[in-house]
Amino acid sequence: MAESWATLGVDLHLEPTGSGLRRGLTDALREAVRTGRLAPGTRLPSSRTLAADLGIARNTVADAYADLVAEGWLTARQGSGTRVGDRTVVPPADPSRSRREQHRPTYDLRPGTPDLASFPRAAWLKAARRAFTAAPNDALGYGDPRGRVELRTALAGYLARARGVRTDPDRILICSGFAHALGLLATVLRSRGTRTAAVEAYGLPPHRDLLTAAGLRTRPLPYDELGTDIGELSGVGAVLLTPAHQFPMGVSLHRDRRTAVVDWARRTGGLVLEDDYDGEFRYDRQPIGALQDLDPDRVVHLGTASKSLAPALRLAWMVLPPGLTDEAVAAKGGHDTCGVLDQLTLAEFITSGAYDRHVRAARLRYRRRRDALVAALASRAPEVRVTGIAAGLHAVLRLPPGTEKPVLQAATWQGLALHGLTYFRHREAVAEPLDALVVGYGTPPDHAWTGALDALCRVLP
Amino acid sequence: MAESWATLGVDLHLEPTGSGLRRGLTDALREAVRTGRLAPGTRLPSSRTLAADLGIARNTVADAYADLVAEGWLTARQGSGTRVGDRTVVPPADPSRSRREQHRPTYDLRPGTPDLASFPRAAWLKAARRAFTAAPNDALGYGDPRGRVELRTALAGYLARARGVRTDPDRILICSGFAHALGLLATVLRSRGTRTAAVEAYGLPPHRDLLTAAGLRTRPLPYDELGTDIGELSGVGAVLLTPAHQFPMGVSLHRDRRTAVVDWARRTGGLVLEDDYDGEFRYDRQPIGALQDLDPDRVVHLGTASKSLAPALRLAWMVLPPGLTDEAVAAKGGHDTCGVLDQLTLAEFITSGAYDRHVRAARLRYRRRRDALVAALASRAPEVRVTGIAAGLHAVLRLPPGTEKPVLQAATWQGLALHGLTYFRHREAVAEPLDALVVGYGTPPDHAWTGALDALCRVLP
Repeated sequence: MAESWATLGVDLHLEPTGSGLRRGLTDALREAVRTGRLAPGTRLPSSRTLAADLGIARNTVADAYADLVAEGWLTARQGSGTRVGDRTVVPPADPSRSRREQHRPTYDLRPGTPDLASFPRAAWLKAARRAFTAAPNDALGYGDPRGRVELRTALAGYLARARGVRTDPDRILICSGFAHALGLLATVLRSRGTRTAAVEAYGLPPHRDLLTAAGLRTRPLPYDELGTDIGELSGVGAVLLTPAHQFPMGVSLHRDRRTAVVDWARRTGGLVLEDDYDGEFRYDRQPIGALQDLDPDRVVHLGTASKSLAPALRLAWMVLPPGLTDEAVAAKGGHDTCGVLDQLTLAEFITSGAYDRHVRAARLRYRRRRDALVAALASRAPEVRVTGIAAGLHAVLRLPPGTEKPVLQAATWQGLALHGLTYFRHREAVAEPLDALVVGYGTPPDHAWTGALDALCRVLP
Repeated sequence: MAESWATLGVDLHLEPTGSGLRRGLTDALREAVRTGRLAPGTRLPSSRTLAADLGIARNTVADAYADLVAEGWLTARQGSGTRVGDRTVVPPADPSRSRREQHRPTYDLRPGTPDLASFPRAAWLKAARRAFTAAPNDALGYGDPRGRVELRTALAGYLARARGVRTDPDRILICSGFAHALGLLATVLRSRGTRTAAVEAYGLPPHRDLLTAAGLRTRPLPYDELGTDIGELSGVGAVLLTPAHQFPMGVSLHRDRRTAVVDWARRTGGLVLEDDYDGEFRYDRQPIGALQDLDPDRVVHLGTASKSLAPALRLAWMVLPPGLTDEAVAAKGGHDTCGVLDQLTLAEFITSGAYDRHVRAARLRYRRRRDALVAALASRAPEVRVTGIAAGLHAVLRLPPGTEKPVLQAATWQGLALHGLTYFRHREAVAEPLDALVVGYGTPPDHAWTGALDALCRVLP
């Protein structure tokens, strides 16, 4: 009966044991219906047939079918069996979105999102009230394309104090998140004639895609234990780096390489884009200052409130060299695109000290999680080596060779969302692929953290 | 001594009489320094020389110089006269911004901004608190690129009820203002192979520029007393219209032409972009429903909170035909770029009825202003004909031929910011240019409205 299933065209990677069978089957079927691989009206095999085909209990299949009937994806009628329903809803365009909405995992240990449950709602509302009450009427109009001066002023002070960034409010540009900022810079670089940007061999694929979309070729720089290797930059116009805490590997860029990349920029007129995404969260050592401090004329410093507060604020900033400010502002368009109320609130949040208080509390919370992760792995997964834990909201778990893929598969069936290191690897990277997980320990709310850690340990070799 | 002034390269259009001489001279000089036309260190003519040159009182020049010394633009030293100062501030990139910041007029009657002083701050903060308190934690993460479902749901209901728009939340895309929305649509159109978009002969230049920036040619459609003439659309892939209240002329599109443009779209596969920027403010008749109602498959309906509430919210929306939704969402990028808190607050504002209450109060306020404008013009400027007053926040004041330019010049010298109709005219428009002003009566706060109206009447023929 394997044919009947193959005919349905559904990719199923069933682990023959484990508690997540029903969920995994449900998810796979739902995805097949959603994407149209199972057309409306298609008759599904009987639960008995499919169970035999998959070597699982018939009840598991019957339960999965029932779930999907309840959700409206399937219909079941006496005498005509189970069929794919006629969906009137337009299928969503973005698969990552639909995965988020419809395949919500039990536990999420993917990196990139802080603990949203600990967002300081009351303090934020208080700051919003204060900021909004004090704002002049014309703050409500079409604004300065650079963003509100209150926020740029607060950031200039904060970044100097906390990250060693050298700037003034006139050279700060507020953006709707890091991706917005990077997209603007890519546009500016391309219009200046830059054709190739160097990126780290491991990094976020959506960031590379943004550069590509603007017409830039991305070239991966090799990675070793000193961080990214800056050696070979001929023909490159800009370098995108995460110097304080390499994403995802977690090391900080060696001081010789910090100097080397700035020297390269000075020599060639190149530009360094410093992605300082989680500079606030450093646990074991003194904070590592911003690379921008080495040469504010050649380094663009980029920061965001997405990790320190929440992505939903859609507030990020770039600190621009004087020679780039006008072009970046022009690329943003004739007026501001970021909501003024949140800008005023963040300014008030920073200047009142609430931001520092929140960051300190969050640092403590994340550090405890990190320690729990390291302890659990030491006792329950001794074959796994944890790295990149001096800072940030994620760790890299090095796995025995050949085990990344099966571990990820097992995780899916446990309802545990995980990213393997392979996801982050540039397709032209030359070094041998490493088997590893990138575990974001910031994401789960406190009450789910122990359960998430358990689920993780269960799938590790 | 006219040479000495010409050497300075400053454009001066001095009205020989009037109370605004000092201000006008100060503004012109400041602008010349700011833009670098007067280089740092340049020695200015003595106040006596310049006064003789311009035929004005020496004190007026001395006062203007003193103002600019106080502001730091000029320096005055015993024995070395008045010179242009050494500015360390980087000159801003965007002239419209610098005009806003540094040449703030006494009265502003340019259209496009509502009365910011009447923004319902207390009600908004109350809604923010309610919405934010009720929001689930994952509302704070990276969001659906279409925007928050709460806001899309609230808008679907509101737009159906208030504007006759046919839609559901899945086909609404939240954007950071109208310009963001139009930019996304232009990108989608261009990538579909559209080369030419028809626009109204009179409209906002920045909107035409957005289309041009995306690679589209804009072709002006003639304007007459029935609104925009839809007749000639060969080779056009999309039409950008303001059907409810033509901007800036103020008429609503005749029903025959509404039908004609939708017929054209059906026949040719073209697309109509309906800019419904001020649909909420209609005074004299029943609201004119959305054009989108005639064919939701061929009309994109665009709306904004910038006129009904405030531009600073940076919230606009488009209602997309099913066949365009995925592409527009993809153009917006992988996740939401609009702040979630304001989205949740606006959703709460709409569903709680606060939005309707605010709009009703604002409609009453603007209607009173419009009536005062019409009455003042009737008694004090009988040569001026007012049109386009059935709706919206602006009126068109038709002037005797040849008088638009001198009236605008006089207004500048009175510290009154005004737009002439010429500013809005497409450079390829064929009809004979009309002399007129486009007066935005929403912009001044209540306390300044009478003064603004006086200033306006003073400069009219």
